[in-house]
Amino acid sequence: MERIDGRLYDELRPITITRNFNKYAEGSVLIEAGETKVICTATVDEKVPPFLRGKGNGWITAEYSMLPRATQTRNMREILRPSGRTMEIQRLIGRALRSVVDLKALGERTIWLDCDVLQADGGTRTASITGAFLALADAIKFLKDNNSIQVFPIRNFVSAVSVGIVDGQKMLDLRFSEDSKAQVDMNVVMTDEGQIVEIQGTGEEFPFTRADLDEMLNLAEKGIFELIEIQKKMLSDVINEVKNE
Amino acid sequence: MERIDGRLYDELRPITITRNFNKYAEGSVLIEAGETKVICTATVDEKVPPFLRGKGNGWITAEYSMLPRATQTRNMREILRPSGRTMEIQRLIGRALRSVVDLKALGERTIWLDCDVLQADGGTRTASITGAFLALADAIKFLKDNNSIQVFPIRNFVSAVSVGIVDGQKMLDLRFSEDSKAQVDMNVVMTDEGQIVEIQGTGEEFPFTRADLDEMLNLAEKGIFELIEIQKKMLSDVINEVKNE
Amino acid sequence: MERIDGRLYDELRPITITRNFNKYAEGSVLIEAGETKVICTATVDEKVPPFLRGKGNGWITAEYSMLPRATQTRNMREILRPSGRTMEIQRLIGRALRSVVDLKALGERTIWLDCDVLQADGGTRTASITGAFLALADAIKFLKDNNSIQVFPIRNFVSAVSVGIVDGQKMLDLRFSEDSKAQVDMNVVMTDEGQIVEIQGTGEEFPFTRADLDEMLNLAEKGIFELIEIQKKMLSDVINEVKNE
Amino acid sequence: MERIDGRLYDELRPITITRNFNKYAEGSVLIEAGETKVICTATVDEKVPPFLRGKGNGWITAEYSMLPRATQTRNMREILRPSGRTMEIQRLIGRALRSVVDLKALGERTIWLDCDVLQADGGTRTASITGAFLALADAIKFLKDNNSIQVFPIRNFVSAVSVGIVDGQKMLDLRFSEDSKAQVDMNVVMTDEGQIVEIQGTGEEFPFTRADLDEMLNLAEKGIFELIEIQKKMLSDVINEVKNE
Amino acid sequence: MERIDGRLYDELRPITITRNFNKYAEGSVLIEAGETKVICTATVDEKVPPFLRGKGNGWITAEYSMLPRATQTRNMREILRPSGRTMEIQRLIGRALRSVVDLKALGERTIWLDCDVLQADGGTRTASITGAFLALADAIKFLKDNNSIQVFPIRNFVSAVSVGIVDGQKMLDLRFSEDSKAQVDMNVVMTDEGQIVEIQGTGEEFPFTRADLDEMLNLAEKGIFELIEIQKKMLSDVINEVKNE
Amino acid sequence: MERIDGRLYDELRPITITRNFNKYAEGSVLIEAGETKVICTATVDEKVPPFLRGKGNGWITAEYSMLPRATQTRNMREILRPSGRTMEIQRLIGRALRSVVDLKALGERTIWLDCDVLQADGGTRTASITGAFLALADAIKFLKDNNSIQVFPIRNFVSAVSVGIVDGQKMLDLRFSEDSKAQVDMNVVMTDEGQIVEIQGTGEEFPFTRADLDEMLNLAEKGIFELIEIQKKMLSDVINEVKNE
Repeated sequence: MERIDGRLYDELRPITITRNFNKYAEGSVLIEAGETKVICTATVDEKVPPFLRGKGNGWITAEYSMLPRATQTRNMREILRPSGRTMEIQRLIGRALRSVVDLKALGERTIWLDCDVLQADGGTRTASITGAFLALADAIKFLKDNNSIQVFPIRNFVSAVSVGIVDGQKMLDLRFSEDSKAQVDMNVVMTDEGQIVEIQGTGEEFPFTRADLDEMLNLAEKGIFELIEIQKKMLSDVINEVKNE
Repeated sequence: MERIDGRLYDELRPITITRNFNKYAEGSVLIEAGETKVICTATVDEKVPPFLRGKGNGWITAEYSMLPRATQTRNMREILRPSGRTMEIQRLIGRALRSVVDLKALGERTIWLDCDVLQADGGTRTASITGAFLALADAIKFLKDNNSIQVFPIRNFVSAVSVGIVDGQKMLDLRFSEDSKAQVDMNVVMTDEGQIVEIQGTGEEFPFTRADLDEMLNLAEKGIFELIEIQKKMLSDVINEVKNE
Repeated sequence: MERIDGRLYDELRPITITRNFNKYAEGSVLIEAGETKVICTATVDEKVPPFLRGKGNGWITAEYSMLPRATQTRNMREILRPSGRTMEIQRLIGRALRSVVDLKALGERTIWLDCDVLQADGGTRTASITGAFLALADAIKFLKDNNSIQVFPIRNFVSAVSVGIVDGQKMLDLRFSEDSKAQVDMNVVMTDEGQIVEIQGTGEEFPFTRADLDEMLNLAEKGIFELIEIQKKMLSDVINEVKNE
Repeated sequence: MERIDGRLYDELRPITITRNFNKYAEGSVLIEAGETKVICTATVDEKVPPFLRGKGNGWITAEYSMLPRATQTRNMREILRPSGRTMEIQRLIGRALRSVVDLKALGERTIWLDCDVLQADGGTRTASITGAFLALADAIKFLKDNNSIQVFPIRNFVSAVSVGIVDGQKMLDLRFSEDSKAQVDMNVVMTDEGQIVEIQGTGEEFPFTRADLDEMLNLAEKGIFELIEIQKKMLSDVINEVKNE
Repeated sequence: MERIDGRLYDELRPITITRNFNKYAEGSVLIEAGETKVICTATVDEKVPPFLRGKGNGWITAEYSMLPRATQTRNMREILRPSGRTMEIQRLIGRALRSVVDLKALGERTIWLDCDVLQADGGTRTASITGAFLALADAIKFLKDNNSIQVFPIRNFVSAVSVGIVDGQKMLDLRFSEDSKAQVDMNVVMTDEGQIVEIQGTGEEFPFTRADLDEMLNLAEKGIFELIEIQKKMLSDVINEVKNE
Repeated sequence: MERIDGRLYDELRPITITRNFNKYAEGSVLIEAGETKVICTATVDEKVPPFLRGKGNGWITAEYSMLPRATQTRNMREILRPSGRTMEIQRLIGRALRSVVDLKALGERTIWLDCDVLQADGGTRTASITGAFLALADAIKFLKDNNSIQVFPIRNFVSAVSVGIVDGQKMLDLRFSEDSKAQVDMNVVMTDEGQIVEIQGTGEEFPFTRADLDEMLNLAEKGIFELIEIQKKMLSDVINEVKNE
């Protein structure tokens, strides 16, 4: 058996990142992982949500959406209420990014990450996290350059990738055609130190063993370290600020 | 350090289950895990959602809600749209239960599981899964007794439990006061064969290592096997039908 | 003709009340009137609605809801907007309770009464009023015990009951099977002094005479006085505070 | 004490009715009760709601709304959801009109009554009922004239009026300035035979005795009989069709 | 070919205006253009929307709605969200009226114009503008009489009319039966000086030439000047205040 | 005075069009007019809306949206209801495209045009029309190539442009910084034959004369003819199909 696009089982799709894709946003990238394309913009908002007011802490939150024809058949725009899937994804992106930022050092402001999928071929939520981290870093650089913050508050790099079991085979970075017939589907968010920020695995049709889990985590770790290398190259101008790099 | 209620770190809270709590539903239980109390009812609906019509397969879906004063402070009823949290939970419950049922053998009908939290002291989503499995089993028994189905379509027992890291200590089955200060919070859904149906772990403030993950899975497995023993006792009248028991 | 459960025409169903059913709420009861079961919780909120701010008066308001499978067939949860029926009922409960409380003496705070029907077999709105009065009394006792209020602001006991004409026969406290074929359906809210707080009678299919009305009021009064006796027993520890008892 | 407009306590406000106010509707009136002005239109719809399909019965339903500036201060339009008050009123109007119509004889069709308040000075719901009856009669005449129905299905005239206790004085047909300070507020719907279709009385601030109730019903009966006389005059061309007139 | 009601191609329908139609509003008219009937009320609100606060400028905004049976067949009330058509119309009315008012001189307050269509026979949006101008003028007179404003802030009269091409014939002030088969439909808002405030022309099925546009503007100008003459007569008591009249 | 970007008053911004931007859609372009960037996709849907069913005619409809950070400051996503502005624009795009298509020849199917603005610097609605025409043409080519239709149903090219008066100067194709201070703002949709499909001009703050209107139409015509030349080049492979080219 071979993968549809000839990749090895532990191989990522080619990644292309266009930084400063949008002229207005404080940070923005277009991230392409194979045929999956997501615009991530970071917006600085000098307010925090009500539950944080007056506490001196910042906040990072995300919104996720697909263009109606990002997919093979057109989806209705989500009027009235985001679907459960959309809400799960945007909560996940927000947690992933907050995990590597010192919100105290960010100061009482919010950074909004908007992840808008132009074309979806699997892995849109993980591409959103990997791309949104870059947009976030640029927005924070913008704050630092303007002396709005004194300390660069990002502690770690963070990326995400999907892994799964398809036709009994564990594989990294599933395309839509793989994902749609996967027995197990798992998303992993990890830092540059290999620590797990989030793990979400589901084997609705085929429950899996702890040994399976371990093998899938090996694949995820490999993919995430490669993605973080790309992030580091993209951010070579700010990299010294992140952590003790 | 000791747990607030004197439990060991690997100890479940006491479980009380009242079967047939509701006189109308095809299956129903009141499940109490310590101070957490959830009513789970199963309703048989002789229709399936549009995307399944005419395919001969059944469907299992869940709704989850809290009474306004299930919590320490009153929450507004969720008018206009369920919160992201609510939607995540009801999608999780649905996947967990579908994972152990042969939907083909269920026939073209839906079973609705309603999980309504009367009192919340942590672990409401995992108690919902553990309790909803029992309500589901009774609803399926009802269908079998009426000859609506020929084969008992439940393949495995399934239960769920939370684990986490609190003040650096890994522990099983968190109460609200533990959960609210947890560094890592993880929910695990597992079958009687120890297979993972769902794993959702988040270390938003403290990313965790793969070794931590392993220890937490040990705790979860222990708790889930105990819960499944309780389920088996409750269902002694139908147990021979489930799988090869 | 005899009633379905052998009761006399002027006989209430058995009443069971479990006080302090919920560990978080300032007041709570589970009231069971035959097979009808309602949880009533009272929540103290140290704010008043905008239209009352700064006037020194308190407010009492109610919300009413049914669990989806409280009824013979499952009802959809009321997303987007409560039905007209739900709104009528919660407005009725609010008026009934406000009628016996000195809102000035309550101080500028709101007491929320949540009436959630676990199982519905007729008379859910009247059971809600009778039960909510008890939860309210406990919440007010809580305020008094904490010295948040100086004077006990409840002036009267209040209960409610349904009466109706079924197959030409006037009867007290209708079950669902009676209510669903009633020609006339009436709900009465009355104080311990026999004063009418609310009367709502409808003879959509069979208009009724003023003599019929009188006979139904006799039945209602009998039932309400019995319910108030039960309330008084339940509240023996606070009864001296209510009015001139 | 005297009434603000010099009326006697048992005196209705002057009634003006403009029949066929709207050129499209199958029946329509503008009813003016003093300064209260309501347009009532009846629309024949050759369908019934889903719960009635295939049963051969007709249906009558009502919607009620106020123009934003019908009142002393402007109200927001009811977007998203009608208020509880609006829903109560439209359910009341629907019940009142269905009570005097033989829905079987109406055939499987719906008559929609729209009651839109142009100016509100108290008694808008009772004026809506009194006016909507006339629009309904004209719509039914339209069906009869077109041979859509064989028998005239209205069995009785029906009207409604408000009564109340203001400053300790019982009075008929309250204006807004009276209603807003009423201790007791009651709406009564009655047929030409003096039978009660609906009674809704509330003494939220001042519970009332059964003797008070009786006196208020005397006033209501007097007012309703006068309104029905006016209806009969207006409908002299169809009156022989109604019941045994 | 002749028009359905015998009018000339450049002839308006008869206009009837009832000033002070509503006793509560600061300004109100019932405008009838042939069978089209619209109530326009103006409400003074001593606040401005958030985007204008503290800037010392006033605001004028409009809402537009139809009664359900204003049209040949009944329309559902617009619950949840106004239709696109409704929103376009109310934005148009707002712009038209703001164009002739000095918002600075109005002071930091809002005037709400509610245009509610009782009966629709074409031209409801243009009748709304023509009528709302009168209601606005009366509301501003009310402010002036109360010394809330020092200068009369209306600079010009403004009216609106529809023109179109029907069966190849250009005509003024289309009725519904003409409008529904029009090849081109255009609405023009113009001041007493013949200046265009708004032009909206659409030839969805039959694009039109610039020469056609010119001829239609001639018709519109003729109609608008006649409407403004009527406005001036209606407002003879305030006319000296408007502009340099 | 000179334009901000050095353009002449009658000069368009540079136009870049990327055809087949999206791999799933039946037609798609990314259109860039200066800094304004819009993705237009066309989706073929083998159904028509209810009001057209069974009539044999096709339908073309449009949706328009902006990414939250398409603008200088972030906009909230339009949950619950599209704004009035959004609805006006999508209705305009739909009318513009339908005007040049023979809906009968399209057959009973719908083409959805989604116009999603990635970056907004003025003229997003007109760029949407110009770009959507190209996506539409490709979708129709797709239908023709598949023999789903026999005749190429596009009768004319259509484009749109904005014109306005800024600081007293009439100019073509306004950028945001020009548009935001324009006295008059006008959008024109025109065919390759110079016929007007839609004209929408508004002089809310500065009403304009008919001579002004004429001059602005001259500018619009010049711009539109240039845009249509670009469309013709882009579509050189299908151009012979359009009309009598």
